[in-house]
Amino acid sequence: MELTNWLEKRVRLSPKRTALVFDGKQETFSEIYDAVQKVAGQLASFGVRDGMFVALLGKNDRDTFLMLHALQQLGTKTVFLNNRLTATEMGYQIRDARVERCLYAADFADVMANAAGDVRAVAFTEVMMAESSGVTQAVSHFPMETVASIMYTSGTTGKPKGVMQTFGNHWWSATGSMLNLGLQEGDSWLCAVPIFHISGLSILMRSVIYGIPVYLEEHFDAKRVDQFLRSGEVTIISVVTTMVQRLLDTYTKSYHPKFRCMLLGGGPASKAILESCFAKGIPLIQSFGMTETASQIVTLPPEDALQKIGASGKPLFPAEVKISDQDEILLKGPNITAGYLHNEAATQAAFDANGWFRTGDIGYLDQDGFLFVQERRSDLIISGGENIYPTEIEHVLLEYPTVLEVAVVAKQDDKWGEVPVAFLVTTKETSEEQLHQFCEERLAKYKIPHQFHFLDELPKTASQKIQRHKLKKL
Amino acid sequence: MELTNWLEKRVRLSPKRTALVFDGKQETFSEIYDAVQKVAGQLASFGVRDGMFVALLGKNDRDTFLMLHALQQLGTKTVFLNNRLTATEMGYQIRDARVERCLYAADFADVMANAAGDVRAVAFTEVMMAESSGVTQAVSHFPMETVASIMYTSGTTGKPKGVMQTFGNHWWSATGSMLNLGLQEGDSWLCAVPIFHISGLSILMRSVIYGIPVYLEEHFDAKRVDQFLRSGEVTIISVVTTMVQRLLDTYTKSYHPKFRCMLLGGGPASKAILESCFAKGIPLIQSFGMTETASQIVTLPPEDALQKIGASGKPLFPAEVKISDQDEILLKGPNITAGYLHNEAATQAAFDANGWFRTGDIGYLDQDGFLFVQERRSDLIISGGENIYPTEIEHVLLEYPTVLEVAVVAKQDDKWGEVPVAFLVTTKETSEEQLHQFCEERLAKYKIPHQFHFLDELPKTASQKIQRHKLKKL
Repeated sequence: MELTNWLEKRVRLSPKRTALVFDGKQETFSEIYDAVQKVAGQLASFGVRDGMFVALLGKNDRDTFLMLHALQQLGTKTVFLNNRLTATEMGYQIRDARVERCLYAADFADVMANAAGDVRAVAFTEVMMAESSGVTQAVSHFPMETVASIMYTSGTTGKPKGVMQTFGNHWWSATGSMLNLGLQEGDSWLCAVPIFHISGLSILMRSVIYGIPVYLEEHFDAKRVDQFLRSGEVTIISVVTTMVQRLLDTYTKSYHPKFRCMLLGGGPASKAILESCFAKGIPLIQSFGMTETASQIVTLPPEDALQKIGASGKPLFPAEVKISDQDEILLKGPNITAGYLHNEAATQAAFDANGWFRTGDIGYLDQDGFLFVQERRSDLIISGGENIYPTEIEHVLLEYPTVLEVAVVAKQDDKWGEVPVAFLVTTKETSEEQLHQFCEERLAKYKIPHQFHFLDELPKTASQKIQRHKLKKL
Repeated sequence: MELTNWLEKRVRLSPKRTALVFDGKQETFSEIYDAVQKVAGQLASFGVRDGMFVALLGKNDRDTFLMLHALQQLGTKTVFLNNRLTATEMGYQIRDARVERCLYAADFADVMANAAGDVRAVAFTEVMMAESSGVTQAVSHFPMETVASIMYTSGTTGKPKGVMQTFGNHWWSATGSMLNLGLQEGDSWLCAVPIFHISGLSILMRSVIYGIPVYLEEHFDAKRVDQFLRSGEVTIISVVTTMVQRLLDTYTKSYHPKFRCMLLGGGPASKAILESCFAKGIPLIQSFGMTETASQIVTLPPEDALQKIGASGKPLFPAEVKISDQDEILLKGPNITAGYLHNEAATQAAFDANGWFRTGDIGYLDQDGFLFVQERRSDLIISGGENIYPTEIEHVLLEYPTVLEVAVVAKQDDKWGEVPVAFLVTTKETSEEQLHQFCEERLAKYKIPHQFHFLDELPKTASQKIQRHKLKKL
């Protein structure tokens, strides 16, 4: 099963519709298509070709937007690098994915220099000044089973794994979302979440499939976004909890009636935030999803949002959710990842015998079929929309000579929702500064514990399992 | 690839939304689901079971609506019988499809008695008064490759062929249509086209997939429909040309602003009708499709409707159209039929070597990619939305003892768009009445020629092919 190359199809169907609004400039699908074709030709002259793994290190801007579409035109499998990672972290992903070319925005030249290793790294500027290979390189079709993008998540092992997202995953995610949220004339989607995360990338995919504009924002600027929501230019926005809080802080007058959906992902909102949104008539739609589900898979439909505060909602039409005997939330559907890149063991472990994807999260379904998430997988910490896996930080800290035992847990934070804090047992006195510096060299800034607490011993169960819930209370 | 049983999924997602409005009565998905489950249990007690071919002879009413959903719940392959056919015509389809059960509405008891032959025929009333088998019979999933419905079309050979429509065909048709027409809160679709045709059945499938109400009308009553369109209750309607004409004749004041799409299928509209609609602000969207494409596959998107009068439009996002070297219109896409039932030869003939479906229609694509249909397959006659294949009528007339040669062609008609007329060469004098009576016994009323013209010889090419275009001029 394959569909015509989506961007090519879209430009044939509606060349004059707006595709991208960035930095105040509007471009139609026809203009974007031409720009993308040019970049594709230039990329081809650097040896980028069908089936190749290519790492992309950019930000939420037009250049990165063109690059990712150009890579898709060429049939590459794009490895999206989180631009907040350290060179060590990126280097791991580049090697694990067997990347053959790295593309990077100028801002990230230094980190890329340390991350790329033997792999050829090319700056966006270099690509865009190159001669085109001259050949029409675009793939004619996007086969549903073909991997389009790879995004790394750490998961329980602490070792990052490359989540493979196929064209089919993106397609079903987009159409599943459409069946839930509808598609109206004049729709447009604001993207201030990172496009190296599935929350951002999925907006760009929907734009092409739906034929609607993306309002791409380099940073989340609450005042700018507030203006967009009041103007009626933007009808849908994807947000994480911290963004909602900042929007509420900025809020002075009603949003435009055309603004119809604030899609909340990346962790739950507090009841206070939810109620504040409802009081202001903000159409907040909660959702539950992960990199492995190609964005939201469970959402609260508009008609139920008021009755079921605290719920994640119901699965999209093409998807299914069930609860295992161990209360684990299991998922099925055509938007769920094909598995982890070059990691058959992790892939097998992620699915049960009947093909259900194991989220690792604990939850239940109420009598009306609404999903409630009670406890998140592997004590996942969600900080400003970024997923942080305690084990990854713990592994780094355990490498420090004096650290004997360590446990990282979430702490509530007004600004970020949650932040990581570390509890340690050391062989001799160790300073916070030393540990902080050690982490800085090895971990993205948002993963570095905000506090280091030194204990004589960590609370444990009889079977020597660390009792994280006890640490959280401290 | 399979999805959860659609009706079951829909009732879990939005039990309280309206599913059906019939005869002034509204029912929710929850109420419909319960009614359907009951009927499914009753049908099971008549031996109806998963994988069985079951013929359905009903009309546009609640009973037929429940029956077809109940059959889908049970996993049968439903053969939709056109209720205007003669017993002979129906009998052919029942036997060709190897039907094991026939279900019929009371109105059609006589014709069914003559059509069913050895096959067990059960009246709806009998089903609905039966005890339920008591067992939950519903299939859990609708596999995309499984045949859900069969509808007969005659085609060029004159021998009706059963078009197999899979769940995947219906799904992709519905989502392709949604990507084109959007899906808005408050949408509802009026169905006054027969549900034994794909134009009607596809509305019922969309209702379940989208979660919107069907306004099911037993007959097309222009005054009633006019009221629906003015009230804002109905936002989309599917029509054929004769219906548009009758609506225009009835039109007194503007339709409601929420009414957003009059989807025209089953043959082209005259320029006069199109212009009249545009003048009145009626959102007429032309389309091109066939039983084999599970409804519209090419439509005029709203933004192009005014600029491209006379065009059929562009293919839906998941579909493709191209023109062969012989100017034949070829189609590809996941909404296209799996083939003809029990007829491998016809299936093979319908697709070219690269899997493109051969429409038999002649046309071209303009420089902007819009499809224009120039000449229809096998001189197809479209009369009030019904497809009539001249060869089928010709075969019947050739059985009459005195008929030597015959050709049936379309004649323009103010009420029906087109009607069939016959040109004959006979061995001795024959009356119109005799021929009319002969046809009445063998052909559905709408297929009977409105005129019989007697000629000394039919106009032919050097290679003895009848020149139909010359007859049309007569």
